[in-house]
Amino acid sequence: MTTTNNVNGTASSEVLNAPFIKTLVLQTRGLDTYGTYRNWSDELILKPFVVSKQKKREISVENEVDPITQARIMAFYRAVAARIEKETGLLSQVVVDLSHEGFGWVLVFSGRLLLVCKTLRDAHRFGFDSLEKLADEGEKLVQNGIDLAKRFPEVGKM
Amino acid sequence: MTTTNNVNGTASSEVLNAPFIKTLVLQTRGLDTYGTYRNWSDELILKPFVVSKQKKREISVENEVDPITQARIMAFYRAVAARIEKETGLLSQVVVDLSHEGFGWVLVFSGRLLLVCKTLRDAHRFGFDSLEKLADEGEKLVQNGIDLAKRFPEVGKM
Repeated sequence: MTTTNNVNGTASSEVLNAPFIKTLVLQTRGLDTYGTYRNWSDELILKPFVVSKQKKREISVENEVDPITQARIMAFYRAVAARIEKETGLLSQVVVDLSHEGFGWVLVFSGRLLLVCKTLRDAHRFGFDSLEKLADEGEKLVQNGIDLAKRFPEVGKM
Repeated sequence: MTTTNNVNGTASSEVLNAPFIKTLVLQTRGLDTYGTYRNWSDELILKPFVVSKQKKREISVENEVDPITQARIMAFYRAVAARIEKETGLLSQVVVDLSHEGFGWVLVFSGRLLLVCKTLRDAHRFGFDSLEKLADEGEKLVQNGIDLAKRFPEVGKM
């Protein structure tokens, strides 16, 4: 795995080995029906998840959220679900409900327990300041989900 | 309130007074931004929720679920949520996530607790054999939700 610095954030091999990041890469490759990413490095696959504040301001929230951004949001939350699954053994579902205006809900649930429950705003601009931020945010959701699953195993297993 | 018999099911004043049916009428009137239903009787408003087996077969599942059917699905589950809310005091959200093919999820949740968690199939054909069936199915979901909310109050109030 090569490591380079880029303007959007420093990609060290450390962050590329973070469990959340590795899972996210796997999820993205898993959703890659047409094999577009087959020869792409992990870094290249992760690059679109990093969106600087400046870049975000440039993305219009006027139109529908484009399908590639939607797929990216899905991959992010599927990675969260997959990590929770790995740590708790609970199978979970991801539901993303976006209105045309980029507002909506993301829900990750297992049995009758909502492991992740987030509202989305301006989903067109979905992205993180850096790969480190991406890893941190993802892992934070994972840990919250694991805590919940451990607190309420009965609800998670319904 | 008038009571009549119709081919799709017998509308007795009893069923029109069922708590679920009354809530459903209120929800439908509440979603009626343009006042279309202002002069409609409750029965007329409820009529499209009754779809006979024969009629269902005639509805194509080829195209997108039409917006009026989507609104009807939303009204049904909002009524479920409103009834649970009334009985338990828990505020709840309804998320409907439908693919273009009419498959998807309906989730009603409060805090981190999923009060209703259903997969939808052939959503184009959403409807019930009779008003009684509509009232029964709705109330069953309500009672399940209330039971859950009472069993896991801590999760519902998160």
